Amino acid sequence: MRARELGITVGSLPPGEHNAITDVAGVRVGHTTVIEGDATRTGVTMVVPHDGNVWADGVYAGHHRLNGNGEMTGLPWLEEVGLLHSPIGLTNTHSVGVVRDALVALEVEQRPDGVEAWALPVVAETWDGDLNDVDGFHVTAAHAQAAYLAASDGPVAEGSVGGGTGMTSHEFKAGIGTASRRVSTGAESWTVGVIVQANHGRRERFAVNGVPVGLDVGVDVIPGVASRLPPGSGSIIVVVATDAPLLPLQCRRLAQRCSLGVARTGGVGENSSGDLFLAFSTGNRGMAGLGADAPAVATVRTLSNARMTPLFDAVVEATEEAILNAILAATTMTGKGGTTAHALDHELLLAALARYGRPATRP
Amino acid sequence: MRARELGITVGSLPPGEHNAITDVAGVRVGHTTVIEGDATRTGVTMVVPHDGNVWADGVYAGHHRLNGNGEMTGLPWLEEVGLLHSPIGLTNTHSVGVVRDALVALEVEQRPDGVEAWALPVVAETWDGDLNDVDGFHVTAAHAQAAYLAASDGPVAEGSVGGGTGMTSHEFKAGIGTASRRVSTGAESWTVGVIVQANHGRRERFAVNGVPVGLDVGVDVIPGVASRLPPGSGSIIVVVATDAPLLPLQCRRLAQRCSLGVARTGGVGENSSGDLFLAFSTGNRGMAGLGADAPAVATVRTLSNARMTPLFDAVVEATEEAILNAILAATTMTGKGGTTAHALDHELLLAALARYGRPATRP
Amino acid sequence: MRARELGITVGSLPPGEHNAITDVAGVRVGHTTVIEGDATRTGVTMVVPHDGNVWADGVYAGHHRLNGNGEMTGLPWLEEVGLLHSPIGLTNTHSVGVVRDALVALEVEQRPDGVEAWALPVVAETWDGDLNDVDGFHVTAAHAQAAYLAASDGPVAEGSVGGGTGMTSHEFKAGIGTASRRVSTGAESWTVGVIVQANHGRRERFAVNGVPVGLDVGVDVIPGVASRLPPGSGSIIVVVATDAPLLPLQCRRLAQRCSLGVARTGGVGENSSGDLFLAFSTGNRGMAGLGADAPAVATVRTLSNARMTPLFDAVVEATEEAILNAILAATTMTGKGGTTAHALDHELLLAALARYGRPATRP
Amino acid sequence: MRARELGITVGSLPPGEHNAITDVAGVRVGHTTVIEGDATRTGVTMVVPHDGNVWADGVYAGHHRLNGNGEMTGLPWLEEVGLLHSPIGLTNTHSVGVVRDALVALEVEQRPDGVEAWALPVVAETWDGDLNDVDGFHVTAAHAQAAYLAASDGPVAEGSVGGGTGMTSHEFKAGIGTASRRVSTGAESWTVGVIVQANHGRRERFAVNGVPVGLDVGVDVIPGVASRLPPGSGSIIVVVATDAPLLPLQCRRLAQRCSLGVARTGGVGENSSGDLFLAFSTGNRGMAGLGADAPAVATVRTLSNARMTPLFDAVVEATEEAILNAILAATTMTGKGGTTAHALDHELLLAALARYGRPATRP
Repeated sequence: MRARELGITVGSLPPGEHNAITDVAGVRVGHTTVIEGDATRTGVTMVVPHDGNVWADGVYAGHHRLNGNGEMTGLPWLEEVGLLHSPIGLTNTHSVGVVRDALVALEVEQRPDGVEAWALPVVAETWDGDLNDVDGFHVTAAHAQAAYLAASDGPVAEGSVGGGTGMTSHEFKAGIGTASRRVSTGAESWTVGVIVQANHGRRERFAVNGVPVGLDVGVDVIPGVASRLPPGSGSIIVVVATDAPLLPLQCRRLAQRCSLGVARTGGVGENSSGDLFLAFSTGNRGMAGLGADAPAVATVRTLSNARMTPLFDAVVEATEEAILNAILAATTMTGKGGTTAHALDHELLLAALARYGRPATRP
Repeated sequence: MRARELGITVGSLPPGEHNAITDVAGVRVGHTTVIEGDATRTGVTMVVPHDGNVWADGVYAGHHRLNGNGEMTGLPWLEEVGLLHSPIGLTNTHSVGVVRDALVALEVEQRPDGVEAWALPVVAETWDGDLNDVDGFHVTAAHAQAAYLAASDGPVAEGSVGGGTGMTSHEFKAGIGTASRRVSTGAESWTVGVIVQANHGRRERFAVNGVPVGLDVGVDVIPGVASRLPPGSGSIIVVVATDAPLLPLQCRRLAQRCSLGVARTGGVGENSSGDLFLAFSTGNRGMAGLGADAPAVATVRTLSNARMTPLFDAVVEATEEAILNAILAATTMTGKGGTTAHALDHELLLAALARYGRPATRP
Repeated sequence: MRARELGITVGSLPPGEHNAITDVAGVRVGHTTVIEGDATRTGVTMVVPHDGNVWADGVYAGHHRLNGNGEMTGLPWLEEVGLLHSPIGLTNTHSVGVVRDALVALEVEQRPDGVEAWALPVVAETWDGDLNDVDGFHVTAAHAQAAYLAASDGPVAEGSVGGGTGMTSHEFKAGIGTASRRVSTGAESWTVGVIVQANHGRRERFAVNGVPVGLDVGVDVIPGVASRLPPGSGSIIVVVATDAPLLPLQCRRLAQRCSLGVARTGGVGENSSGDLFLAFSTGNRGMAGLGADAPAVATVRTLSNARMTPLFDAVVEATEEAILNAILAATTMTGKGGTTAHALDHELLLAALARYGRPATRP
Repeated sequence: MRARELGITVGSLPPGEHNAITDVAGVRVGHTTVIEGDATRTGVTMVVPHDGNVWADGVYAGHHRLNGNGEMTGLPWLEEVGLLHSPIGLTNTHSVGVVRDALVALEVEQRPDGVEAWALPVVAETWDGDLNDVDGFHVTAAHAQAAYLAASDGPVAEGSVGGGTGMTSHEFKAGIGTASRRVSTGAESWTVGVIVQANHGRRERFAVNGVPVGLDVGVDVIPGVASRLPPGSGSIIVVVATDAPLLPLQCRRLAQRCSLGVARTGGVGENSSGDLFLAFSTGNRGMAGLGADAPAVATVRTLSNARMTPLFDAVVEATEEAILNAILAATTMTGKGGTTAHALDHELLLAALARYGRPATRP
């Protein structure tokens, strides 16, 4: 169940076909969900930027850090030249390394014969240690590879899947969420897609369309997660894709707008949170090839900065809705040490919205 | 008239005595309002960080850029060592230079005999060209000096004063606004104060406590400013002060949280907006003196990062409320070319809040 | 007299026609030198990026800070989108404001009728307070405008001219210096030009082509400047221009390489030094226009990152040579309080080079 | 054999007891060298910041990127709060993940009972694919742990050891190198130590004390590495330690000065190079503990910025000498595909220095 299936619309821009990051042509998402025994509740999600060899044919990208208590590998090259040259792996905090090296192995496998190269893949994480035996290192290279192989376009599974399996957000069960928007900037129109791995936020600040849902649905109604950490200790990773032709700094501008979507749903970049955002554009290709066929000078397109505000709006809206979807799609889960993370009850949410003059209109 | 006088409370933390940046001990604010003839609607605001010689005895500070279509001088030294060594001047876009050099002249005047030094003052701006003849350069060094001399503690004049004189926000008349919060982080408590020069935002996105006031109060009720620029083209400067003992990077963390307050009231860092934020801490002094008496090694205090989240909350709340105060305190103004910027009608605002389950409770 | 006229060659790449930043087509440089009475020794230099209306038709640019004890205005927009939209003013520390606002006035003057806009010009500085009455504010808007109007292509005056008038470097009289290099990157070749306002460095570290000239030419031979500040307290501004088609982050990469040229001649980014570098590319135009004719999507060219190393080499070499030219072109000057800054004796330099196996070969 | 054993002195500051990063009290270094069969030439080096539990008791740190074609994990937290909370692992490009997760496992092992936490360790790399089967993933978690367990104070093995095993620099065999300096800044004195994993640079630019050794020792005398990549494609990691009490931004200032040492020996941050630098200070401790005993407000010391220039000099000198030591200590090695990386002949180096007026003086 997603926000729009409940009749909840965030913002004013229309979503793409699947209301998912995969609405950006060529972008694919795959999950490996690892649930074993009483305490393994984790996984890997892969976001594949396009349908070619991304190692050889990178895309422009930029990142933003709202709060840095987290990891995203691959940052030096992203900051230096604004090129993303790998699928993006999302997993738990303590499995970043294994997923990172698994992506390197993938690059080795896909590398054309006779080319010498190296890989600096992007892997980000949030901490699922409330529900998952994160110190047990249950994610393997095979899990990462399976997530890559599973990547497909079309609808994206949300909630407790892939890297989001053991995650909670605003003290409700959460995980992976996605959304998209269609934007016109002059004669042309573009798609902006967002995917989140949401594991952040305090309940008291959780808001949907400005309605203080978190306060309204108190812990007497739905118990909070019995976290051994203070509320708000988790993290959120947001990945933005667009087919608008953007240069690296323009991607970075999109990445920063994820902060604003996080803010509107109640996040403040809490101290223990790793709120790291990455945006990439598929609107230019072929400018960063390997080997002798790489052009010395490539021709690329850049959307006028003066036309970018609608894209900013789209990122804010889609981030908000993706966070909401991550929570709505997740169902109650019990994990490590018997800890239970409760789902947000949909009817309670709808009732809260109605009480604050924002009734949902089921389609 | 301020938000709390109307019964509107933002967030949950208590404000300081004056609900103003001046609640941070030693911080002073002064305005010079320059209104002349039909088309001069501008001025200067000075925020003085402490009551000593700030040139010789700097404070730790950090800045954040939500969007960079604006100017804030003094950034290289702020980024390099995180020290603020000047009053902070706020004015219009085209008068940054004159205010900057006027602050240098102030430093020269205050410099102890026999000391050789230079000044790299901080001046920021927003563009008042809808109401003000900004291309006419009507701000003088004398205006800047007068704002400095007028700086005082206690209540702060808001709305169409000082640097905020000709500003509009979310398509309503706006200008200067301020707010503060008291925060406990363990055994000690601190004050966080915020001042904004608000000239940003589109009406359609303006929200108060999550209520879509901007949509509710359409241009058929209160006409928008007849700007020659697209809505949202302005800027917002936010200055944060705190007595919590913070290091430079910790100040920078506060500065970034201004983005979240801007987001919650409806800003998205629009392309043409210069959304530049500066946070400083008065909690350490004496570590950056001039001359022979400067200590080789200074002892400073630093709040544990693990205790900072309440300060983040305070910045978000106070930024939201300061923006609201900037709008509420401003009255309708007519300026250059007969352009009128209309004030937000207080009763319309209260009615909108009530419609969305957020009735104000006048004290 | 310049390095090459003395037979000193830095590096291996060939210089352009004038061995000056003006070898990049369209780039122009103008100086206003302000020498009055006993104590006024200052001025303004303007670097104009191209021969069109730079306010309306910006160029891609990036900056780097080796050390931040200095000012460069205009940074927020440069960092946000990587666009330079103004001539670059170089002056003394305390005159940044007046030059900045004079550039704004220039934009107002050049702005097409009916267009609403604002200016965020770039002005940088070094401190000439040893020789100049910097606290007396002798630079005027008229000086800045005159430097702009004087801007021309062809050979560039060096040494004690323009913004460099009162400057010293490595404890010798210095000021403005320039140099250029021709670079091939595949089928095409490009020009890289550099201009410095050099006011930095300690004599003991000054090196030419690796030869410890500063140690060799001790203060017993040429007295040091009787500075009231510790040696190395000054600053260096470096501006790099190229016709290679670079994106903003690629310009930023060039800007950082200025650090390496500074390092090789003996700078360490001393604490009191403002070592700020800006690089721009004229290789793309027309992508950031004002008004209705600005394209929604512009097509730009980008040199492959894999071809950039020769450009890095060029920046390093040209920065080294421009610093050397700034020193060689300057003649002994007496200024404020009778302070004298002595020129580096050319014969002593040549003798030092010969002693260390680097004899100059006069052409 | 090290530079000083050959009579080569870099700069003017005195080294510490071992002329090594371990001269900073508490800093330890350990290596695991992995040489197997014909093609495995790699390893891991661990730099341990102090002798306590670094996971619980971090140190202030800052980083700088001269060029970003490389990986350093852990950057978001380093940038956010300037705290280093792990040993620093150095290895090959494709083994960053396994070393990273091995450090996480170490944290889990060392974590006090009942404390919930996570680890974001710092691991950096250079690419040893000329000599090593880097695509074969021969580094294991056990190798990383062994390097940690081997960490000791005192003299540090240099050259083809640990992470440096398969590395080359300026087209000579190289690897790990270290150096240190003693600095006085007022009444107190401090130690600055540097360790490099050097795998960067072109021979034609290699310089020692300004002498163009690389040109002097051409490939007709010592053949270059038969790299399948263009010269200068490698990377250099520099880690700086000091006991001077520095805040995070001050550490970052030291980190940037590594660029200047790299520049003086001939590096330009070539496009394919990952030139990533990290500096940490052991001069403050106890400010970032875990659990209930962490202070809400810690008292720390900060060296006056006005006293930092001698530390900058020390970083530049020690970086230069550490690079030289990395080359001098390495011996000729044959690896993958029969590729041989030749050592720099010591006598040829000494002869070049003598030819350029810089004769070495053997102790």
